[in-house]
Amino acid sequence: MEARKAAGSLIIMTEIVLPNDTNVFGNLMGGRLMYWMDIAAALSAQKHCNAPVVTASVDNISFENPIKLGNAVHIEAKVTRAFNSSMEVHLKVWGEDMTQQYKYKSNEAYYTFVALDPNRKPRPVPQLVVETDEEKKLFDGALRRRQLRLILGGKMKPDDAVELKALFFKD
Amino acid sequence: MEARKAAGSLIIMTEIVLPNDTNVFGNLMGGRLMYWMDIAAALSAQKHCNAPVVTASVDNISFENPIKLGNAVHIEAKVTRAFNSSMEVHLKVWGEDMTQQYKYKSNEAYYTFVALDPNRKPRPVPQLVVETDEEKKLFDGALRRRQLRLILGGKMKPDDAVELKALFFKD
Amino acid sequence: MEARKAAGSLIIMTEIVLPNDTNVFGNLMGGRLMYWMDIAAALSAQKHCNAPVVTASVDNISFENPIKLGNAVHIEAKVTRAFNSSMEVHLKVWGEDMTQQYKYKSNEAYYTFVALDPNRKPRPVPQLVVETDEEKKLFDGALRRRQLRLILGGKMKPDDAVELKALFFKD
Amino acid sequence: MEARKAAGSLIIMTEIVLPNDTNVFGNLMGGRLMYWMDIAAALSAQKHCNAPVVTASVDNISFENPIKLGNAVHIEAKVTRAFNSSMEVHLKVWGEDMTQQYKYKSNEAYYTFVALDPNRKPRPVPQLVVETDEEKKLFDGALRRRQLRLILGGKMKPDDAVELKALFFKD
Amino acid sequence: MEARKAAGSLIIMTEIVLPNDTNVFGNLMGGRLMYWMDIAAALSAQKHCNAPVVTASVDNISFENPIKLGNAVHIEAKVTRAFNSSMEVHLKVWGEDMTQQYKYKSNEAYYTFVALDPNRKPRPVPQLVVETDEEKKLFDGALRRRQLRLILGGKMKPDDAVELKALFFKD
Amino acid sequence: MEARKAAGSLIIMTEIVLPNDTNVFGNLMGGRLMYWMDIAAALSAQKHCNAPVVTASVDNISFENPIKLGNAVHIEAKVTRAFNSSMEVHLKVWGEDMTQQYKYKSNEAYYTFVALDPNRKPRPVPQLVVETDEEKKLFDGALRRRQLRLILGGKMKPDDAVELKALFFKD
Repeated sequence: MEARKAAGSLIIMTEIVLPNDTNVFGNLMGGRLMYWMDIAAALSAQKHCNAPVVTASVDNISFENPIKLGNAVHIEAKVTRAFNSSMEVHLKVWGEDMTQQYKYKSNEAYYTFVALDPNRKPRPVPQLVVETDEEKKLFDGALRRRQLRLILGGKMKPDDAVELKALFFKD
Repeated sequence: MEARKAAGSLIIMTEIVLPNDTNVFGNLMGGRLMYWMDIAAALSAQKHCNAPVVTASVDNISFENPIKLGNAVHIEAKVTRAFNSSMEVHLKVWGEDMTQQYKYKSNEAYYTFVALDPNRKPRPVPQLVVETDEEKKLFDGALRRRQLRLILGGKMKPDDAVELKALFFKD
Repeated sequence: MEARKAAGSLIIMTEIVLPNDTNVFGNLMGGRLMYWMDIAAALSAQKHCNAPVVTASVDNISFENPIKLGNAVHIEAKVTRAFNSSMEVHLKVWGEDMTQQYKYKSNEAYYTFVALDPNRKPRPVPQLVVETDEEKKLFDGALRRRQLRLILGGKMKPDDAVELKALFFKD
Repeated sequence: MEARKAAGSLIIMTEIVLPNDTNVFGNLMGGRLMYWMDIAAALSAQKHCNAPVVTASVDNISFENPIKLGNAVHIEAKVTRAFNSSMEVHLKVWGEDMTQQYKYKSNEAYYTFVALDPNRKPRPVPQLVVETDEEKKLFDGALRRRQLRLILGGKMKPDDAVELKALFFKD
Repeated sequence: MEARKAAGSLIIMTEIVLPNDTNVFGNLMGGRLMYWMDIAAALSAQKHCNAPVVTASVDNISFENPIKLGNAVHIEAKVTRAFNSSMEVHLKVWGEDMTQQYKYKSNEAYYTFVALDPNRKPRPVPQLVVETDEEKKLFDGALRRRQLRLILGGKMKPDDAVELKALFFKD
Repeated sequence: MEARKAAGSLIIMTEIVLPNDTNVFGNLMGGRLMYWMDIAAALSAQKHCNAPVVTASVDNISFENPIKLGNAVHIEAKVTRAFNSSMEVHLKVWGEDMTQQYKYKSNEAYYTFVALDPNRKPRPVPQLVVETDEEKKLFDGALRRRQLRLILGGKMKPDDAVELKALFFKD
């Protein structure tokens, strides 16, 4: 299975905030945004591995700026690293008020997907080739984020998370 | 009001075909696709003129290939020409079967929008600066398409549509 | 296959404009209306041919009056002419403000559908019998509209469109 | 306030059963149908009284035949009788399998609406003029159905429901 | 087939009223509420009989208080009595304005479901064991409500509805 | 402002997985589930603080078992701890196959909300009174989770996260 470039997995999604997507303040509900992010990220992972995928986990998401009714939502999703049968996808989300020419960051996030074969068992995915500096940085960080995920999911002991420990709590 | 580049109005939208978007053959319904195209094109027009817009008309659309359940829908929208208060937007639509690495054209279309002021009256929009060959070709064709629209809408007599006539029915 | 009356294909659809169907002006979005029109027209074509159909093309649509939030949307669809395996459907759309007793035209349009057999191949459809003056006029015009569609789709040379030419650019 | 004809309140709605409207048997869910019936009936009541209305009550509904995925749903709604500020609306619902040329009854129902003024208080509605035999029969029955509604809602004692008693439990 | 406790069939559903669920007064539409009630009641019936179910009928529903945009909707559903292959489910619905700490009743209702086998034929369901006073009262009333349903559906003559007659029109 | 009991903030939500909620394997999409969880958690936070809230952040979510088409989704949300103007809400999610009498865990998660005043500024919320052992354990853990959130959001240095450090990387 040949390794594939990160750039090949880029998905750009644009949506508009409609009334039913908003809370009582007229701002996009966090849950609705996470729904769109899940679809963009799943498409990115599928583009990398050419197989159906399912969402395995979502990392901490912090919502920075509310996106208003009628504004555009811009989502960019790209695979950061491929493991055996799983892929981490990085998402960047902006809102844009077209009439004010004002574009603002909403959040960044990491979703992880597992590729499945027709029997719904995990299947191997191609490795990822990174080219730009940003891609390399995201690739390197993926290992630490994975360790954190495994610890939070109770599948790894903190002391075994060497990369995470080194960065997180410097001695 | 300063003229603005066509490239600045580009909107890229990606959607996934879900069960409720499909007909009995499991293919994306034409009406659902026109709904997404309307939103992508409206965002493109708003990005050009920085004002709210409403759909004025839609040109002939011909659906070439069905897009299947679970496939991705890629829509690209860009303004082709600005008139007084209206803008023509060109749309290209592809389907993509991620597992088959198969990307196919669905259709091309032209939507026209009018910019409105807060009193819901038409307001002037910036003129368009075209740079690439494709942008120039679309800009030139916009005049003929507008004449055809006016004739079909009963607002122009065929004999007055000089550009359209010259191209359409060569003597 | 016995020819069938145009009147037998009439479909009447009524919808209400809900918040999520509207733009920032509180008016029905064009794309949402084209979605409803597609369903009404598809049902009309199916009623004529008793087979599943898919949308082949949509002619120019010009939106005349905005339909407001809370207003009713009235759509009438009827087959105008049957070709080998395709049917043209004529749609008339009105808005209605019930509290003001005010009914207004939104647009008229033509959608074309193809009937498919279980292998998804085009299948013959019954010819259409027209009775009223309006049905006859729509039947006659269908040929010209079809020529325009073929020219716009690049499948016919303008000079071969005899009926269209005669009407469009009178010598 | 001038009385108005029953025929003037007729609303015809046609919908198609999409995947998300169905249960595990691929049949239209009862709740989804009651949602469409509520909208059709509300539009009928509004057409009669030219004022906004709210659903006050729904009578017993019995679902006779399941409506299948991809089939058409036909709903006809017409006011049967106007009281002070409320109106009873009669609904008839059929399913139709277009490919089988098979049309079948789903159910009949009565919804009651109250007209509201801008302060959300009940306001008087025009009386109803009935013309056909069916309209007269529905008009007469409306009184008995209203008595039953009041009894079931705990707002009338069974012994006071003269019309209902006479018909229901003949001595 | 072993009888099962009523308490085992309890389903609690909470929803929020979003813009698209509301009428022009900003209140939850009756039809949208009946849709949610149908799903809650169907889940309750399925929990009792462990088989797929379809909605057979809905009894009179009277809407007492409007539920406002942004408010919570609380629905509780519990089986009241099992017949051969059908089950009656009782529903209680409240609205809640969280910022005002104000909880108010919307309505009570009875939905009836039929359990189906894989061939879509009615199948026997377990009998119901009632324990609390409220469960007993609802169990007793189920017989009368069933007689009323049968009479209204034209499947029973009023004079044969002994329980209903005794309660309804006391001599 | 009087402290309030954790038990008072409990929200129970039940949903059914419909076709449009599923991926190509017929399982609930992760994004759709996070949407429902956001609504359940927001209602729980509102119930605690009696004010409108917005989603501030979501902690790592790991999806353990897929929830199938037609199955029930059970969500329980309860506030674990109140800070100045923010509240952490704990969610537990199960799927249930009613016909198989099989209930299975999907995931656990923590959402954080901020209460806003009418000017959309953060406002103080009541402190939380915990009673059960589980509530106490969740209350204690909330401090560590908050430190992790602040570190991941770049708002706290790892070395200052005393509670988190003590637990995470025992010396």
